[in-house]
Amino acid sequence: MHDMDNKGLLIVLSGPSGAGKGTICSAYLKRNPGALLSVSMTTRKPRPGEKEGVNYYFTDKQSFEKMVKENKFLEYAEVYGNYYGTPREYVEEKIASGFDVLLEIDIQGALQVKDKYPDGVFIFIIPPSMDELKRRIIKRGTESAEAIYTRFQSAYHELTYLSQYSYVVVNDTVDEAVRRLEAIVLAEKCRVARNKGLYLGL
Amino acid sequence: MHDMDNKGLLIVLSGPSGAGKGTICSAYLKRNPGALLSVSMTTRKPRPGEKEGVNYYFTDKQSFEKMVKENKFLEYAEVYGNYYGTPREYVEEKIASGFDVLLEIDIQGALQVKDKYPDGVFIFIIPPSMDELKRRIIKRGTESAEAIYTRFQSAYHELTYLSQYSYVVVNDTVDEAVRRLEAIVLAEKCRVARNKGLYLGL
Repeated sequence: MHDMDNKGLLIVLSGPSGAGKGTICSAYLKRNPGALLSVSMTTRKPRPGEKEGVNYYFTDKQSFEKMVKENKFLEYAEVYGNYYGTPREYVEEKIASGFDVLLEIDIQGALQVKDKYPDGVFIFIIPPSMDELKRRIIKRGTESAEAIYTRFQSAYHELTYLSQYSYVVVNDTVDEAVRRLEAIVLAEKCRVARNKGLYLGL
Repeated sequence: MHDMDNKGLLIVLSGPSGAGKGTICSAYLKRNPGALLSVSMTTRKPRPGEKEGVNYYFTDKQSFEKMVKENKFLEYAEVYGNYYGTPREYVEEKIASGFDVLLEIDIQGALQVKDKYPDGVFIFIIPPSMDELKRRIIKRGTESAEAIYTRFQSAYHELTYLSQYSYVVVNDTVDEAVRRLEAIVLAEKCRVARNKGLYLGL
C-alpha cells in the first residue's frame, strides 16, 4: 500500500450515546493494525488489573492541573471528582510514527479536540434511524411521559452537533459502519491538503 | 448497503497526461455498476460504429453554440474545429437517479466543471513519481534537450493545478488506485455536507 505520507491521522469518533461508537471502534482496531486507541490520563485510582499506559496513564490531581495549564491535553473533563484527559504528546508521537490514533469520545470532548487539533478527522456516529430510537424510548414502558420527553430532547439536542463534524456514519451494521470508516480514513490520506509534501517533492 | 442519500456524485478524474486516468476509469466502472461514464456531445461526424448516446451525442455547430449560450454544458472546448462538451442535463439526470457519473477530463475542462458544479468530487491522478516521469522523458533518446525541457515545464506546470483539487491519487498500481478512488467516493457519501436531508429527516 502506498499512503503517500508517513504521518498518521487523528480519528475522532463521537456522537449521541447509544449509537454504538465503542463496538465500531473495537471492530475497526481489530481489522486495522496501523491504528491505535488513544490512552487517556486520569486522576482516579487504578482498578485491579489496570495497567499504566495500557488502560490509562495514572497521575495525581496536582500534576493533572499543571498539565492543563501547560496546554498538554487535547481535551479533558472532570467526572465525579476525577479528571480524565487525552494527552496531546501521546497522540502526536504516535501520529508522527505513522499510526492512526482513534479517539472515542463524547461530543463536548470532540469539540475541544477540534479546537486544539483541527487536522483531526471528525466522525459522527448515529443510530440507523431516529424513528428506531424513538421506538426504543417509547417501548420502555417503565418511563414516564416526562422522562420520554427529556430523552427525546437530549437525543435531538445531541444531533444538532452533527454540523460540527466532517462525516456522518450510520451504524446500521457494524461491518458496514467499519467499511465506511475505513473508506473515510483512506480518502482523508488522499486529500490534497494532507499531501503538500508530495506536491513540493515532485 | 446504506448510502444515506439517494443522489449520486459527479466524480471528476483529471491530472497530467500519462498519469493513467483512462485505465483507472475503466477499471473503476467495471467494478462499480452504480457508476456511469459521462457521454460527451460533439459536432464532429460519427465514425463507423459509433452510436448516438453511447459514444457521443452528435449535433451540429449551430445547436452546440446555442447550448453554450444557454449554459447547458458543464464544460466544453474546441479541438481542431470541432466542439466537444459535457451536457449538464445528462449528468444531472443520472445523478438524480442515484448514479455516480465519472468524468475523465483534462485540467482545463475540470476547472470549468468545478466552476459550474462545485459539488463534484475533484480528483487529481498522478504518476507514481515525477522522478519516474523525468526518467521516462530523458530515456526517450530521440528528443532534443529543448523538447525535454519543454516536457518538464509542461509536467511541472500541470502539477501546479493540484491545489485546485480535493484529492490526489497516485497511480502506482491500477488496483490500489481504484481502491483509493472507491474509498473517496464512499467517504464523500458520508460527508455531513452531503447528508443534510438525513439531519433534517431525523
